[in-house]
Amino acid sequence: MMELEEVYRKLGGEVKKFEKFSGQLDVGYEITYEKRITEADVYLFGLISGDFNPIHFEEEFAKKTRFGGRVAQGMLTTSLVSAAVARIPGIVVLLETYFKYTAPVKIGDLVRIQGTVVEKEKNRYKLNIKCAVEDRLVAEGWVKILIW
Amino acid sequence: MMELEEVYRKLGGEVKKFEKFSGQLDVGYEITYEKRITEADVYLFGLISGDFNPIHFEEEFAKKTRFGGRVAQGMLTTSLVSAAVARIPGIVVLLETYFKYTAPVKIGDLVRIQGTVVEKEKNRYKLNIKCAVEDRLVAEGWVKILIW
Repeated sequence: MMELEEVYRKLGGEVKKFEKFSGQLDVGYEITYEKRITEADVYLFGLISGDFNPIHFEEEFAKKTRFGGRVAQGMLTTSLVSAAVARIPGIVVLLETYFKYTAPVKIGDLVRIQGTVVEKEKNRYKLNIKCAVEDRLVAEGWVKILIW
Repeated sequence: MMELEEVYRKLGGEVKKFEKFSGQLDVGYEITYEKRITEADVYLFGLISGDFNPIHFEEEFAKKTRFGGRVAQGMLTTSLVSAAVARIPGIVVLLETYFKYTAPVKIGDLVRIQGTVVEKEKNRYKLNIKCAVEDRLVAEGWVKILIW
């Protein structure tokens, strides 16, 4: 697997260190996480999912659409939410997700995830989520997680 | 990017051909798509998102949890839905997604996506989605897409 990481790095992929957030999880707890979406990410998301929609891969085709050029897969953008909640203290299990995709993400964009715990029921937590590129909201929604 | 595909293939990743489904999109239209989730997929999803949750990567750690071993990232499983809907005729844009994760997916599992169009409003469609491994439902929910 190290070979994949080397190739990924060489192609411009940003390798994030996996570190847990600190503090006590409760209503009001906030998380932030960011990662730059590169050519390598769009291609790898295509490989692992099978999503080779030309709107993500063919510039000439994508230029003629309302997006005006290639965009990242929506679910690639929200995959960063998986990484963000995995950094919450404890053993994190994803239960439910809802996302609305509000604006396109271009290759090279730095996506910033912000989450806030809004509900707690025993060891289950709901977080509201915003995904933004600079001041532009690109996706928003919520997730429910379980902490073991 | 071809270098990534070669390494991915060598590590056991399944490269899916991108082909559009046929037929006329309307309420009742059904789609199916399947892909095997491998070690390479879990690792690559980790790289592109930054989700290196030990429940996906550390067998000794994961064995001690209720899962009894490593599991794939939930959002890796539902990334296949992105690939499935991208195969619908027309230029497909993802608008909204809701998923509930109901059972773990192990490395090596073949995940089958089934979708049915349940609502149509102009060029917007809602599909109900089921993700299964053999007879076991691993995730379900719905997506809304726009067709250009």
